[in-house]
Amino acid sequence: MRISVLGSGIVGRTLAARLVDLRHRVVIGTRDPGRPHITRWLRGAGELARAGTYAEAARSASIVVNATPGTATLDALHAAGAAALAGKVLVDVANPVGDPAADPPRLRTGDRSLGEDIQATFTQTRVVKALNTVSPSVMVNPKRVPGDHVAFIAGDSRQAKTMVTGLLREFGWSPHAIVDLGDITGARSMEMLFPLRQRLSRSLGHTNFNLGILHA
Amino acid sequence: MRISVLGSGIVGRTLAARLVDLRHRVVIGTRDPGRPHITRWLRGAGELARAGTYAEAARSASIVVNATPGTATLDALHAAGAAALAGKVLVDVANPVGDPAADPPRLRTGDRSLGEDIQATFTQTRVVKALNTVSPSVMVNPKRVPGDHVAFIAGDSRQAKTMVTGLLREFGWSPHAIVDLGDITGARSMEMLFPLRQRLSRSLGHTNFNLGILHA
Repeated sequence: MRISVLGSGIVGRTLAARLVDLRHRVVIGTRDPGRPHITRWLRGAGELARAGTYAEAARSASIVVNATPGTATLDALHAAGAAALAGKVLVDVANPVGDPAADPPRLRTGDRSLGEDIQATFTQTRVVKALNTVSPSVMVNPKRVPGDHVAFIAGDSRQAKTMVTGLLREFGWSPHAIVDLGDITGARSMEMLFPLRQRLSRSLGHTNFNLGILHA
Repeated sequence: MRISVLGSGIVGRTLAARLVDLRHRVVIGTRDPGRPHITRWLRGAGELARAGTYAEAARSASIVVNATPGTATLDALHAAGAAALAGKVLVDVANPVGDPAADPPRLRTGDRSLGEDIQATFTQTRVVKALNTVSPSVMVNPKRVPGDHVAFIAGDSRQAKTMVTGLLREFGWSPHAIVDLGDITGARSMEMLFPLRQRLSRSLGHTNFNLGILHA
């Protein structure tokens, strides 16, 4: 499959590398594809990977993963362009956190999520919120965390969620680990997990953890 | 021990009833203690329970549990009075949600939590955020949920957190289930779990569930 990953930070590079390992053709979309850290990364990434502008990346794939920083996401998607994103499934893994090191973090207000804002702005794109609740290395390799832990998804399109579920299964998430939180407003629940994740990461001293849901 | 519970809704009554079962002397604090639903409740609650105004309740106990609706909490605490609350441990179990039935819920903004606001307003009171992440029946009986699930606490005073940990253990929470998220800013992580809880409650069809933390 052709999959684009918008964002060349640690989240984007981790997802792109894993997708290449899984034999997908991957385009990393970024503001300026000529920057040295991207050239260096491409050298090690193999022949299935290349880099392009946000617009080139969005045009070249049927699934677009948003791995830009949450506060820069809407600008990056506008740079990609609504036309290039139309008809695509957009997997939004971002957290709308200004300074990720600030503790406690400043999230956007609780009245709306980034996932909802993307869906409201790009109405011809099917947005699925996913994977924003775990660290990049757990996103692509859930076995780093022992036991029954979960990957939430939320989005308005059932078909798009089925495609994203398939992608998560390729990463190693088992079907019963994937918890559908309903329409895209479920993104709110997922983005609001960020402060808890940050606190737990500090107290555990690592990011190989995740939440499980226990119920009667 | 003398424990006051502010709020005569389902959360307050559930906590008060369990505290009476545990042989504590309990005062339910409420706007108007003469209302019929409180009189009715007292009739069944036994000799260790009584009702009073917010101020009477706050004055009569060393531990005060805030079980008022989150959006009404600061008014209720002002009615109790800073003097009556001074020197007390305040266990804040509230969620700052306007209409609990609204889905997705409208939380306060992500920049601050109710727990922090209470601590900033009542500086002579030691606030511990606790139990707001589970349903009332799970708060007082964690065995309703199978497996290793957690009770978060957050607060600036170590001594107050030790007292609250003791109370949680009386309710049946095991020591390793209690996860300390640090100072009162940790309340943000806990209050932001509300939208997730609401979604899960809808999809499971009941509230006998909770989160676990799995880690390497």
